[in-house]
Amino acid sequence: MVNLANRDLVTIDDLSNGEIESIFSLADEMAKTPNKQFGLCQGKIMASLFFEPSTRTRLSFEAAMHRLGGRVISAVDIGATSLAKGESIADMAKVVGSYADMIVIRHPWEGAAKVVADYAGIPVINAGDGSHEHPTQTLCDLYTIRKERQTIPGLRIALWGDLKHGRTVHSLIYALARFGATILFCSGQGLEMPEHVLRRLSTEYKGEFKRCRDLNQNIEREYFPIDAIYVTPVSPHQLAMLPDISLGVELKAGVDALYVTRLQKERQTPTVEGKGPTKGYPVVDKKLLREKEFKKTLVMHPLPRVDELTHEVDADPRSMYFKQAAYGMPVRMALIALLLGARESKIAEEQDPFVRKVNYPAYKRDSGVKCLNTKCVSNQDTEIKYIKPEFKIVSRAPLTLRCAYCDHDVHPQYIASSDWHEGKLESKKYHSADSRMARKIRTENLIIFDSEKEAQADGFKPSTYAKDG
Amino acid sequence: MVNLANRDLVTIDDLSNGEIESIFSLADEMAKTPNKQFGLCQGKIMASLFFEPSTRTRLSFEAAMHRLGGRVISAVDIGATSLAKGESIADMAKVVGSYADMIVIRHPWEGAAKVVADYAGIPVINAGDGSHEHPTQTLCDLYTIRKERQTIPGLRIALWGDLKHGRTVHSLIYALARFGATILFCSGQGLEMPEHVLRRLSTEYKGEFKRCRDLNQNIEREYFPIDAIYVTPVSPHQLAMLPDISLGVELKAGVDALYVTRLQKERQTPTVEGKGPTKGYPVVDKKLLREKEFKKTLVMHPLPRVDELTHEVDADPRSMYFKQAAYGMPVRMALIALLLGARESKIAEEQDPFVRKVNYPAYKRDSGVKCLNTKCVSNQDTEIKYIKPEFKIVSRAPLTLRCAYCDHDVHPQYIASSDWHEGKLESKKYHSADSRMARKIRTENLIIFDSEKEAQADGFKPSTYAKDG
Amino acid sequence: MVNLANRDLVTIDDLSNGEIESIFSLADEMAKTPNKQFGLCQGKIMASLFFEPSTRTRLSFEAAMHRLGGRVISAVDIGATSLAKGESIADMAKVVGSYADMIVIRHPWEGAAKVVADYAGIPVINAGDGSHEHPTQTLCDLYTIRKERQTIPGLRIALWGDLKHGRTVHSLIYALARFGATILFCSGQGLEMPEHVLRRLSTEYKGEFKRCRDLNQNIEREYFPIDAIYVTPVSPHQLAMLPDISLGVELKAGVDALYVTRLQKERQTPTVEGKGPTKGYPVVDKKLLREKEFKKTLVMHPLPRVDELTHEVDADPRSMYFKQAAYGMPVRMALIALLLGARESKIAEEQDPFVRKVNYPAYKRDSGVKCLNTKCVSNQDTEIKYIKPEFKIVSRAPLTLRCAYCDHDVHPQYIASSDWHEGKLESKKYHSADSRMARKIRTENLIIFDSEKEAQADGFKPSTYAKDG
Repeated sequence: MVNLANRDLVTIDDLSNGEIESIFSLADEMAKTPNKQFGLCQGKIMASLFFEPSTRTRLSFEAAMHRLGGRVISAVDIGATSLAKGESIADMAKVVGSYADMIVIRHPWEGAAKVVADYAGIPVINAGDGSHEHPTQTLCDLYTIRKERQTIPGLRIALWGDLKHGRTVHSLIYALARFGATILFCSGQGLEMPEHVLRRLSTEYKGEFKRCRDLNQNIEREYFPIDAIYVTPVSPHQLAMLPDISLGVELKAGVDALYVTRLQKERQTPTVEGKGPTKGYPVVDKKLLREKEFKKTLVMHPLPRVDELTHEVDADPRSMYFKQAAYGMPVRMALIALLLGARESKIAEEQDPFVRKVNYPAYKRDSGVKCLNTKCVSNQDTEIKYIKPEFKIVSRAPLTLRCAYCDHDVHPQYIASSDWHEGKLESKKYHSADSRMARKIRTENLIIFDSEKEAQADGFKPSTYAKDG
Repeated sequence: MVNLANRDLVTIDDLSNGEIESIFSLADEMAKTPNKQFGLCQGKIMASLFFEPSTRTRLSFEAAMHRLGGRVISAVDIGATSLAKGESIADMAKVVGSYADMIVIRHPWEGAAKVVADYAGIPVINAGDGSHEHPTQTLCDLYTIRKERQTIPGLRIALWGDLKHGRTVHSLIYALARFGATILFCSGQGLEMPEHVLRRLSTEYKGEFKRCRDLNQNIEREYFPIDAIYVTPVSPHQLAMLPDISLGVELKAGVDALYVTRLQKERQTPTVEGKGPTKGYPVVDKKLLREKEFKKTLVMHPLPRVDELTHEVDADPRSMYFKQAAYGMPVRMALIALLLGARESKIAEEQDPFVRKVNYPAYKRDSGVKCLNTKCVSNQDTEIKYIKPEFKIVSRAPLTLRCAYCDHDVHPQYIASSDWHEGKLESKKYHSADSRMARKIRTENLIIFDSEKEAQADGFKPSTYAKDG
Repeated sequence: MVNLANRDLVTIDDLSNGEIESIFSLADEMAKTPNKQFGLCQGKIMASLFFEPSTRTRLSFEAAMHRLGGRVISAVDIGATSLAKGESIADMAKVVGSYADMIVIRHPWEGAAKVVADYAGIPVINAGDGSHEHPTQTLCDLYTIRKERQTIPGLRIALWGDLKHGRTVHSLIYALARFGATILFCSGQGLEMPEHVLRRLSTEYKGEFKRCRDLNQNIEREYFPIDAIYVTPVSPHQLAMLPDISLGVELKAGVDALYVTRLQKERQTPTVEGKGPTKGYPVVDKKLLREKEFKKTLVMHPLPRVDELTHEVDADPRSMYFKQAAYGMPVRMALIALLLGARESKIAEEQDPFVRKVNYPAYKRDSGVKCLNTKCVSNQDTEIKYIKPEFKIVSRAPLTLRCAYCDHDVHPQYIASSDWHEGKLESKKYHSADSRMARKIRTENLIIFDSEKEAQADGFKPSTYAKDG
């Protein structure tokens, strides 16, 4: 039996496919009898901590808690909180954790929700941490697709617009991949899906993806720039054997859902801002939806929209975005009730049909390598005092660490072994990460450095493998 | 039987006199047994959306909902909401409408509450939209007068201060007119009641009003500048036959209520601001209230006050303003319970004794005439994409349209008939709105233009009646 | 029996020692059975009005009310309230007092909570008014000490850091003094405990304190600057007979609790800001706590912390600060339930063992002397219109008035007697406050002036005692 009591939801990976199904099953039940759920969470308090603008998500969580009979305490604006006084996220999490029974957190720093979860001592739900993840939006998206198409495996889903900054999109593709959908990336120019997301798709979720840049010229003129097609293998243990795909054929096969996103202006780096890629941002309108490919396409959007999806499409029966928002109610009610242990799921945990979560070895040391993402929570002034850099070792060759907070990849250049002996200082040496020597060091003994300078600061000396490898 | 379930309250005109009485009757009951109302709205959620500063009104609504046992979700500051991301009011309304059971909205744009009501799908209460209306304040005002004087018809009520920007005053005078009160306008200089409000009073509510500017010089020195006296006819179908009124006589007859308002600095247009009419703003103090005319006058104020009503008056038994605020509790509780269908009114719908709501013909077209009020919701960047201009045709000669959103009047110059025949392009002509030809066009066929340019852009050519009329 | 129903908590002095014990006793009960308290305050509404940044305190109060089954209405940001329109605190208090059953107020002006309590008509809790007081924090602090050490009298408690601006510290020392603790002041440079607080300790709480400036040089180098040691007399009516204390001996005796505070940057006067005493602010870290004196010391902090207390100490069993925050829940629950009359205390009112509250004669007149504290609520533009200066006459020689709002002392120079006779204008004279003549005037007849100019403006003439005394 699936039991989600006292669990956190920081990334969509915190839930197995079976657990997601169990949330959906309870959501179905709650959608049918919404008024019978009142009292389920009586006496429980949700702390709703929103350090970034939001109406939709915050009100959705709070309303869901109220519909379950629970109570809500809110802190909405960062200016009105003690964080403005220089307090750390961990301190806030500990204190609020002693007042409330659950925390819902939105924060601009990537990985902030993990820190809250690490320190609060009560269930924590990530309601968006920078450009990192927004897993409950993904649950609403998946729930909408499943509701309308009954299934997810095998569906062909096009992601449209700002795939670079949209955290909703990042959480969503991992989930779609795990559930076995084929994904078409249709990004605006300069707004392509980040490399580390693509790499993770291909390695972790074992799919193949094919760039279609060469086809762009013809296609773009007609409807939209296609960046890549991600194809899920038919069976979990077998790589898909793909012929040289033809985009034309791909498209003629139709699109089951078109997931439109807004240009995330507020996440543009300051240097880019101003010039910005607003102009030429691809627009979904009546004309586009008249194309044969979109005949039976669900038009989805996490909202808020600006100009990328015209109001004239609202009345179209294919438009799902207001339904998506409305489904937020039963989905969040179900999630809250499960994490608070107010309900159990009746669905047995099944084997995930497509992808099992990969358990990478962890790397956690005070000194040496650091995450390079300036928006990562581990790099912020108030947090650096107590957060140790923490990584998953995703690959040894080339050496690739994934930040445990923000999921950005790092490719450190130097390593050493902790297995040197006090008596033999001559063995305290560092090597190039891609050298033959490097590969011999056992993972649990790894010491990893961003630079030679750091290695030397820690008392290591260059080996003959330190430069050429 | 009056049934208000699932209704909206956007302007005070949305309620008939009988419906207002039914709210007051329930408010009386709730004021007597406030603790028995808990549970009436259990399981219901009010979304409290305040896009302008407010303590009083918001807390009053939220407390009222809590006293009924309901729940509240709030969005207080525009900076902290997705509207800052460029979302339309309609989108917000639809989404919140899928979370909550009722919306209370305050917004700086005039007509914003109507848009929310049009799209939310749940009952919507206007808690103030720019300088337009604030109907629940009017309910509290009327309730206070009725409580203290038992009746409204025939009372003489002086409105004092900023009659130009005060939305509370606009809603109030329509209601007072409908209930048959006589109104004395006592505005500060440059803060006179807008023309369109006066015009509406005289045409729609069939009263007469008389300007007393000529008397100002003598009067002003003694106590206050009197602008106009609005006199309600004694019977609904008969115009009041008034002798040439003498202000002296009017005043000696006494004033039943003195409704004081604050200078609405935040609604001054930027050009006016700075110089501003703050200096010389008429002040109500002990000295003024010693005048014989005010011997039995209820001193009212919608609050907050600044300097226009001195603290020394607070202890005076004639001071009603804190009672007004306190009455907000039972009045809003009653309103909420009725709109949510948690209670029904036991009062039978009566014929309005004075004024019936006028049903003007509607005018709604994509192109042509637009509202000229820059603060109207229909003219805002994020809203213009989906809001069609919409008007009531208040008068054919002179042609007068009233914006369905903000109630401002427009006087367009050119019209055409939609009744021209494809085959006969020569009949596709436009005319001056005040020409003989114009009057022949049937109202349902009217096409109305702001300018000749627009008419021509739509393919119309000038008729011989296009210029001189 | 202690009955706190309908009482206010503006300063810690509003509660006797016995009343504090009764709150702690109920808190003990509520901490044991937190889930049984739900419903105790059903149907009651708390208005949570925070005009300064806060997460911790506001969420703590709101969560406490929710755990009792009550409801909460909140106004968080001063920008989003009608106070921005120029409304007075008194008006806000009256209006909110008609909506809610209890007010919790935080405000930057010193004495603001007293004004709210004076006008609201419902129980008011001060959640911090400028640098003045924060009595519920003190309750949490005392509760923590009593929980961990079982008793307070005789404990030796060191206050550390910013003793000048920290309101939590001011409330705390009065309470510690009343409960009979010995206090060691360890302030940062330029952040010493204000003189009026020290004076009050020595006069009102009848303890002695000894400055140790001369010892600073040796001590400072080793661990921290000791400013003064406050010693409580052993019995309430007997002054402590102290030998010339030696700080070394004092310290070797150990410290029971070390109360660390953050540098209150936001309360620095603008002129000081910038240069500021941030540098060299004393830090509590692992190293310091290794000193023998702190072997069994409770490390306390009102939070939020910045850099003055390192994260490395968090895991130390002596660290109490997160417990302190957590105890806020039962303590505030108990307080709310008692003030709302939802519970009674079962503890009999005992004689305070150490200090009885002093009832100073009051002084309250429209003209003459004013509070000199620019942050006092009685000196603010919006409040001066209705607040009469009000003082306690703490001493006749030298003449010392304590502001009834902010507790700052004034030392006016001139006085007169109200006991002069209309017929004998020659008796209408003013005198130097420290003259022989001055001492003869009975306290109830005192008229007090800041300056000769004011005395003369009120029609008084200088007596022969007006200058030299």
